[in-house]
Amino acid sequence: MTKPLNLGMIGYGFMGRAHTNGYKRVGDFFPELQYRPVLKAACARNRENIQKFADQWGYESIETDWKALLARKDIDAVDICVPNNLHKEIAISAAEAGKMILCEKPLAMNVAEGEAMCQAVEKAGVTNTVWYNYRRIPAVTLAKQIIDSGKLGRIFHYRANFLQDWTISEDLPQGGAALWRLEADAAGSGVTGDLLAHCIDTAIWLNGQVRDVTAMTETFIKERTHQLTGKKQKVGIDDACAFLCHFENGSLGLFESTRYARGHKALYTLEINGEHASLRWDLHDLHRLEMFDHADTGLTRGWKSIHVTDGDHPYMGKWWVPGLAIGYEHSFVHQVADFLKSLETGEPCHPTFRDALDTQKVCDAVLASAADHTWHSIG
Amino acid sequence: MTKPLNLGMIGYGFMGRAHTNGYKRVGDFFPELQYRPVLKAACARNRENIQKFADQWGYESIETDWKALLARKDIDAVDICVPNNLHKEIAISAAEAGKMILCEKPLAMNVAEGEAMCQAVEKAGVTNTVWYNYRRIPAVTLAKQIIDSGKLGRIFHYRANFLQDWTISEDLPQGGAALWRLEADAAGSGVTGDLLAHCIDTAIWLNGQVRDVTAMTETFIKERTHQLTGKKQKVGIDDACAFLCHFENGSLGLFESTRYARGHKALYTLEINGEHASLRWDLHDLHRLEMFDHADTGLTRGWKSIHVTDGDHPYMGKWWVPGLAIGYEHSFVHQVADFLKSLETGEPCHPTFRDALDTQKVCDAVLASAADHTWHSIG
Amino acid sequence: MTKPLNLGMIGYGFMGRAHTNGYKRVGDFFPELQYRPVLKAACARNRENIQKFADQWGYESIETDWKALLARKDIDAVDICVPNNLHKEIAISAAEAGKMILCEKPLAMNVAEGEAMCQAVEKAGVTNTVWYNYRRIPAVTLAKQIIDSGKLGRIFHYRANFLQDWTISEDLPQGGAALWRLEADAAGSGVTGDLLAHCIDTAIWLNGQVRDVTAMTETFIKERTHQLTGKKQKVGIDDACAFLCHFENGSLGLFESTRYARGHKALYTLEINGEHASLRWDLHDLHRLEMFDHADTGLTRGWKSIHVTDGDHPYMGKWWVPGLAIGYEHSFVHQVADFLKSLETGEPCHPTFRDALDTQKVCDAVLASAADHTWHSIG
Amino acid sequence: MTKPLNLGMIGYGFMGRAHTNGYKRVGDFFPELQYRPVLKAACARNRENIQKFADQWGYESIETDWKALLARKDIDAVDICVPNNLHKEIAISAAEAGKMILCEKPLAMNVAEGEAMCQAVEKAGVTNTVWYNYRRIPAVTLAKQIIDSGKLGRIFHYRANFLQDWTISEDLPQGGAALWRLEADAAGSGVTGDLLAHCIDTAIWLNGQVRDVTAMTETFIKERTHQLTGKKQKVGIDDACAFLCHFENGSLGLFESTRYARGHKALYTLEINGEHASLRWDLHDLHRLEMFDHADTGLTRGWKSIHVTDGDHPYMGKWWVPGLAIGYEHSFVHQVADFLKSLETGEPCHPTFRDALDTQKVCDAVLASAADHTWHSIG
Repeated sequence: MTKPLNLGMIGYGFMGRAHTNGYKRVGDFFPELQYRPVLKAACARNRENIQKFADQWGYESIETDWKALLARKDIDAVDICVPNNLHKEIAISAAEAGKMILCEKPLAMNVAEGEAMCQAVEKAGVTNTVWYNYRRIPAVTLAKQIIDSGKLGRIFHYRANFLQDWTISEDLPQGGAALWRLEADAAGSGVTGDLLAHCIDTAIWLNGQVRDVTAMTETFIKERTHQLTGKKQKVGIDDACAFLCHFENGSLGLFESTRYARGHKALYTLEINGEHASLRWDLHDLHRLEMFDHADTGLTRGWKSIHVTDGDHPYMGKWWVPGLAIGYEHSFVHQVADFLKSLETGEPCHPTFRDALDTQKVCDAVLASAADHTWHSIG
Repeated sequence: MTKPLNLGMIGYGFMGRAHTNGYKRVGDFFPELQYRPVLKAACARNRENIQKFADQWGYESIETDWKALLARKDIDAVDICVPNNLHKEIAISAAEAGKMILCEKPLAMNVAEGEAMCQAVEKAGVTNTVWYNYRRIPAVTLAKQIIDSGKLGRIFHYRANFLQDWTISEDLPQGGAALWRLEADAAGSGVTGDLLAHCIDTAIWLNGQVRDVTAMTETFIKERTHQLTGKKQKVGIDDACAFLCHFENGSLGLFESTRYARGHKALYTLEINGEHASLRWDLHDLHRLEMFDHADTGLTRGWKSIHVTDGDHPYMGKWWVPGLAIGYEHSFVHQVADFLKSLETGEPCHPTFRDALDTQKVCDAVLASAADHTWHSIG
Repeated sequence: MTKPLNLGMIGYGFMGRAHTNGYKRVGDFFPELQYRPVLKAACARNRENIQKFADQWGYESIETDWKALLARKDIDAVDICVPNNLHKEIAISAAEAGKMILCEKPLAMNVAEGEAMCQAVEKAGVTNTVWYNYRRIPAVTLAKQIIDSGKLGRIFHYRANFLQDWTISEDLPQGGAALWRLEADAAGSGVTGDLLAHCIDTAIWLNGQVRDVTAMTETFIKERTHQLTGKKQKVGIDDACAFLCHFENGSLGLFESTRYARGHKALYTLEINGEHASLRWDLHDLHRLEMFDHADTGLTRGWKSIHVTDGDHPYMGKWWVPGLAIGYEHSFVHQVADFLKSLETGEPCHPTFRDALDTQKVCDAVLASAADHTWHSIG
Repeated sequence: MTKPLNLGMIGYGFMGRAHTNGYKRVGDFFPELQYRPVLKAACARNRENIQKFADQWGYESIETDWKALLARKDIDAVDICVPNNLHKEIAISAAEAGKMILCEKPLAMNVAEGEAMCQAVEKAGVTNTVWYNYRRIPAVTLAKQIIDSGKLGRIFHYRANFLQDWTISEDLPQGGAALWRLEADAAGSGVTGDLLAHCIDTAIWLNGQVRDVTAMTETFIKERTHQLTGKKQKVGIDDACAFLCHFENGSLGLFESTRYARGHKALYTLEINGEHASLRWDLHDLHRLEMFDHADTGLTRGWKSIHVTDGDHPYMGKWWVPGLAIGYEHSFVHQVADFLKSLETGEPCHPTFRDALDTQKVCDAVLASAADHTWHSIG
């Protein structure tokens, strides 16, 4: 017998769709799980929009006030898919209401907010997780397994970037429902919180904590028309950000993100170089992991392109057969599955709020370093 | 208001899962469609297995006799996902019962069976389609659009292969539920009907009919233990097949398929060379289409790797954002969507049975040529 | 003390340059060799052209009649770089004159000519080699070593193609010094002798003799203006050729060549699939060998891209350091080095005329099969 | 009639070979040049070694004291291929002796030395160039042409790295003839002067001057046995170096180099992102330039892989035919050709000493920033 997990979704944008798809598919592909998500309610201020979303995706009811949603007894868990500046208040209230929380990344606008959120969920003892979904791309999960096995030996280098090109046009506005990521008040930061946060989360997971950073940011287009006011307004976010760092394990890190790298749609790449082996991965061909293993016979050493689609690869036994790729959205199905599993086992579903706070600390240090042009230590 | 399309699924194997996933997801991502699949019944001889399948995927009821399924008034369409040797009888009966039919490929065991099936559906006037799903990988659909635009000019060459490596071990048995594809009685042929049929369907769609062929086949492992009898039995299928051909448009074709190409899991590649431009595609990185355009500036000509994930690429506006890949299973969602659309428009959903018969004709000619070592003309 | 090898070069075209470069560089990079080529004489009918060539490349003298060259006592070896229809007469005369012979490929216009040439060099006992230079691209030589080690196990498949696109324009003339490869009288065949012959030579070297073939050829442009006469003339060569074959070892072969594959400049690729491992190579990135090894750990199996530039890779210890690529021309330097070495050891420098005759036999069978549409056995 | 350029080579290591090969081949492939290098003398302290080198490569004479070489009237130009700490004294003396100078990179141990060298050659009015050879890889030269055409528009990003893995073993010694690059006294710095200097030279050439930097360096192995003394000694060089920078044109730069990136032999990659187009290049496949052009038709936009081997590509008309790759060493032949051409035209052969000083300034600022953890402006 399966047990329901009654869900309240707050928000209905891109991430609202991606998460909902995860909830709807998990039972088909992970039938052994005891819990099954039930789409109880979707919530947003705009009644028409949220009703349309609920109809399309099959939510049983709607709410237009998240406080009303939190007050409902039939909701076990809430999924926070709203702009970053709203995470803190909703999350803390949800924790106080005893709801489990699945919060979109980045955790918060800054470390102070994030710390308050962590304390709230920990005090309330509610299960919590943050949607750093790329950990659960099978090729990335496989990288984690390989690294944890010790195969790489001492780590010398870690580098990652997340390159996009969709904001190059000066005519693109900022703000509003579709473009809040370009508005500092709603997003907190630009590429740092939106893209680099992903890189940092994976980096910490794979390579441990970051010790210190030196960073630079740039805003290439200084003013954009605001979507809602129709007025030219100063752009407050970082269009690009790069930083150097040391990890606690002594390895060197190099990170970069931008929305001005012509030709790259969503090029999240990472590479880690160890004494004995190296790994690299690229979101554009997400089912491939590349590996160089110095233990291979000398004459035939080379970078291997591992097509991570076999039944014994992480998560892949749930899907099709070797050679048949899965896509971006599956990472969310996997996180839902792991979240449901955590309800069975009582183990945390990483990254928790506390894990995500580590990423927030690096983001804050990066932005501070970019502002004052000095190295900043973490935590 | 949406209208239901009440479905009866016959079979529950790999393809049963893939098609069912298509039915379940289409409404979420193609909300504008008038028809919505309803999973009315799943059917197979083994009650326990089919009940388990129905429970996992949400079919409302089960049947253990496909004739009983066809007799049900609440079934609008049947999906035939059983071994090839059963297609004909079920399809003809379903047509006679006035059911729409979605039939797994290849259409039939041979042209004679296929012709009978075509006549049945055409006489009954029931909507029909065959699951040559690769037409609806967005990159392949884009190739079709480019070719149809005339961009390539006169076509000189078409080549395709489908290479796998999963039957190299002599210890692999044949037959039974899992391995009927290795048994001639159930499958009709080996790689020719299983893999090359895909290549041929796409080829005809992109480049027109085939005129004549010369072929060779090989069975590398001569005997395998039968899964059910436990006895060593002669292997009756082709392990590998290759053929040369002329297309009606005067271009030359080269096709190959095998399950003995060590290192290739499901490497379906195709390439077409025209006077002005060329295209190529590879199932292992299915969201990429490569294009060489001679009209480009000479100094900077090269093969372009098109990451077919933009909103204006075929089907992609329904999914995520540029750069985020979809996978294998989405091709089935697309075919379901197009099938449902065809119910609105009254237009056929290609490939129809009649379209699939063209592929069957080439397969038959290929096998005949391999047997008698002469060139064979098609139909 | 080094000994001179006095060379007479007959011809001054593309291959004349490539071979001469090989002679001039070999001493710098293979200083341990006892013999050193000396550029004694260059020979061609057109005095002005050959003088210019001799001046540029440093030949000590010129001849305008190859018979005069063969009569010279100070010539030890002749290099035949003239159109295919002249190979036989010159080679036989050279053998009779006791000269060593380095002959450009293909060996001859057909098997009968080739057989006569073999008998001549064998009767005269003169050292001989044919310039199938691709054997000596380090990545290809490494493939040979790996195959010979038994690493691949039983071989199932071999495929190769050589795709170009330079004759697509109807305005391209045929014949004359620059375009004799397009004229049947001078070249014997089109892509079969020019390009497929390379593929066949490597295939036989790597995978053994070919047993039988079925082939098709095509001439897409039926008439071209002759460079010398200025008149439209029927095109007698094959623009494209493809064939299927069985090798003596039971593996299946697939070969294709064309000058009408838009986008491919000189795409010679080969792949061999064995029971335990597979290899592939591509002339466009000639310093890379790709290998899939099933013996690798399951979770991290994949195609390895071996950058064949290490000091212990074939020939590479003579050049630079790991990671630094060499190019096309180096294959000729290597063949010169191996030829000079053969003078020290008395061992043949493969491919000899007799080796090259095996390739000629396959070419002849391919053309015969294309003409009469039946399978042809080899010799 | 050609004129001789009488050369004196100082040094005989890896670069001595690479440059000498350039001198020897230039006449064969650039026959139109008026000047021809003549290998007059090779010079090094060790008589036996330099004699062997001279014999192998064909130098007419040897010297064991560079001052004696500079005193010779029959020497027009000297090529400085000795460790970095000797560049300054020899170059200044050579300038004073009125010799043209071709100096291996980096120019000097630091800016002060470099400035003195610039003043010396400028005062003496002698032709000078520095061997930043990668500018003359055809694909890189093509990148320069495309950028200079304005095709990219405003530049947002430039990134480059040079990754190697050959010093990971603790057992590798430092110092001596073979390993002076690992000894601070001889090399001045580690990867910064050896590898990053290449990246910086190309970057300045393609994207203009650097304004400021923040950097970090690391020495992973703290002690190594000295090759000559046999004693463990502190390692004084940087094993790895990374820096962020701003260019004068407002674009952001990211650079990294290391000898601890397992799996990378000599991975020099660069990428530049402009408003309208982007380019990238990789030394491991040096004949390819990748380009993304936003002006391409939207549906078929993608990264193009340009195989830079056509007759109208930079330098390539001198070599073979389209599709046939050249290698690393050719970049030196090209620089020799351009140097000889500069003697005809009187134009400088870039990079001159003065150009190379710009790179030195960035290197010095990078090392200073790494030492004091602050941003440094460039000169």
